[in-house]
Amino acid sequence: MKIIVDMMGGDNAPLAVLEGAAQAVKEYGITVVGVGDEALVRRTAQENSIPLDGIELVNCTEVIDMCDEPARAIRQKKDSSIVVGLNMLKDGKGDAFVSAGSTGALHVGASLIVRTLKGVKRPALATMVPAKKQAYLLLDCGANVECRPEMLAAFAVMGSCYVNKVEGRCSPSVALANNGAEESKGTPMLKEAHQLLKTTPGVRFVGNIEPRDVPGGEVDVVVCDGFTGNVILKLTEGVAKMLLGMLKQMFLANLGGKLAYLLLKGSVADLKHQMDSEEYGGAPFLGARQPVIKAHGSSKAKGIKNAIRQAKICVENDLCGTMQSALDELAAAQKTEE
Amino acid sequence: MKIIVDMMGGDNAPLAVLEGAAQAVKEYGITVVGVGDEALVRRTAQENSIPLDGIELVNCTEVIDMCDEPARAIRQKKDSSIVVGLNMLKDGKGDAFVSAGSTGALHVGASLIVRTLKGVKRPALATMVPAKKQAYLLLDCGANVECRPEMLAAFAVMGSCYVNKVEGRCSPSVALANNGAEESKGTPMLKEAHQLLKTTPGVRFVGNIEPRDVPGGEVDVVVCDGFTGNVILKLTEGVAKMLLGMLKQMFLANLGGKLAYLLLKGSVADLKHQMDSEEYGGAPFLGARQPVIKAHGSSKAKGIKNAIRQAKICVENDLCGTMQSALDELAAAQKTEE
Repeated sequence: MKIIVDMMGGDNAPLAVLEGAAQAVKEYGITVVGVGDEALVRRTAQENSIPLDGIELVNCTEVIDMCDEPARAIRQKKDSSIVVGLNMLKDGKGDAFVSAGSTGALHVGASLIVRTLKGVKRPALATMVPAKKQAYLLLDCGANVECRPEMLAAFAVMGSCYVNKVEGRCSPSVALANNGAEESKGTPMLKEAHQLLKTTPGVRFVGNIEPRDVPGGEVDVVVCDGFTGNVILKLTEGVAKMLLGMLKQMFLANLGGKLAYLLLKGSVADLKHQMDSEEYGGAPFLGARQPVIKAHGSSKAKGIKNAIRQAKICVENDLCGTMQSALDELAAAQKTEE
Repeated sequence: MKIIVDMMGGDNAPLAVLEGAAQAVKEYGITVVGVGDEALVRRTAQENSIPLDGIELVNCTEVIDMCDEPARAIRQKKDSSIVVGLNMLKDGKGDAFVSAGSTGALHVGASLIVRTLKGVKRPALATMVPAKKQAYLLLDCGANVECRPEMLAAFAVMGSCYVNKVEGRCSPSVALANNGAEESKGTPMLKEAHQLLKTTPGVRFVGNIEPRDVPGGEVDVVVCDGFTGNVILKLTEGVAKMLLGMLKQMFLANLGGKLAYLLLKGSVADLKHQMDSEEYGGAPFLGARQPVIKAHGSSKAKGIKNAIRQAKICVENDLCGTMQSALDELAAAQKTEE
């Protein structure tokens, strides 16, 4: 299996990407096709004694920056690592694409270059979000700011396939993020989506979920528009960061705090581990014809390695084929209703 | 000063309301007009040895339940504590109204009975949300699910008046909750609101704020539509509850944890205090002609007492009059532009 990896994406590229790729090659027995500035990558590898066994390098001369306008960058920077990598994926020169680069450019590129599954207009960005009972899949978490009810139904179908195939959860539950449990709650779009989800084939819809219950992690998939999903994802990170920061202050405040830290060290490490989104790899663009995975921009080697593992699981379980079958079923059901 | 208090609202009524009202009378030197089932209130007072000095009781025979449809309840339950209390406020028989009852019914009642300030169609629900640096005012946090840009401008004006008059902050900063810092981000409504806020008189607009930065507490007022505000408020509570629960588990896990708790006891109390929304009282409906304050449904005596204190500060500082002047200025500026 060949996973194409963007060597130039993310805050810590190319070093962290290279480290993560080398670890993935060793641990998962895959081949990595590294796309980027070949001379820079080779020099980084040499300077840091990272073996390039199992990593094929493909040179390209451009990089899409975070400040580039996504659609323009995809059209104009033809020799950028994202455009070259996505074209290789489309042409069958690899099985999946992993990048810690610009989310916007990856979204546009996944749509325009890799193309979308039948029944999907634009892919959704999905993320496993750490929670109390267990992590849940949140989508869309930022790719499509405004959504129609039918899009949310497709998200529910694809999200169910994902947590089933990649996280190994049977008969996953799906909830609609809303400002109340009753089906009469929310905007007109959400009311319509609620009714649609009740009859969406292949989806075990359990109703609305209120924001206060989302961090409980009692459901497997939470669907919403990309604006709401972005708020949920980023605010969860922000509040967790604030509280963990306050906890750290408590430990550093005085001698008693330092002693308490020594006593709690193991539990604190467990807590950090449970809240660490890098454990789950990256965020897949669900709805692209082949697996495209966005790793966190601040990914360290572990985040990249886990995103590559996640890509491998997507390929092994034919996630995209499974999603297409489920979406075809949804389309057939909608046709019968009309 | 007379504060009208709904004795029947909230999970712990009438006992917690009565306790909070009695404390408020003693501490703040105000008179409370308690509206509710007089016999029940008197019995509760007697059984719990709560003095009724400074508390006038007004009997009413109905209660609006959380499951009542708000608009219908306001129209039909004419002798409910909320309808009677709001009518007394309108008729000048008190200076402000405090209730821990149904948010929906209070919103409809504030609009239909108390009426709104000129330039405000429906009041916004505003809440002080605990944060790292200092608490910020969030509005709308659930009353108006969908909003127009002009409504957000009015929220910004009223929110600035509130944190100035009630929290005593000079020249408060206002940010627009959005999924990116750039002004090109968000839905069409948010893009328009951003442009409008840049020129709104009396508002020190500092641009968009991303959800991850909201818990930092670096701005004084965060404006958004009621759907987004509800997500921000409830998710902040939910994530904090999850993490504080995990922290408790750490303390209870073993002897080391228990010892650590003893060492950190003071800091943990400070943390809980900082994250405790009851400290800030209740959520005012900004835009009603007179102060109407919704206390948390689960309020204990402290929450009720603080909501009454908050009502007193609103009255003392003529918050509603100040907001009307600021809204008039906004209307004049909009007229000049046209």
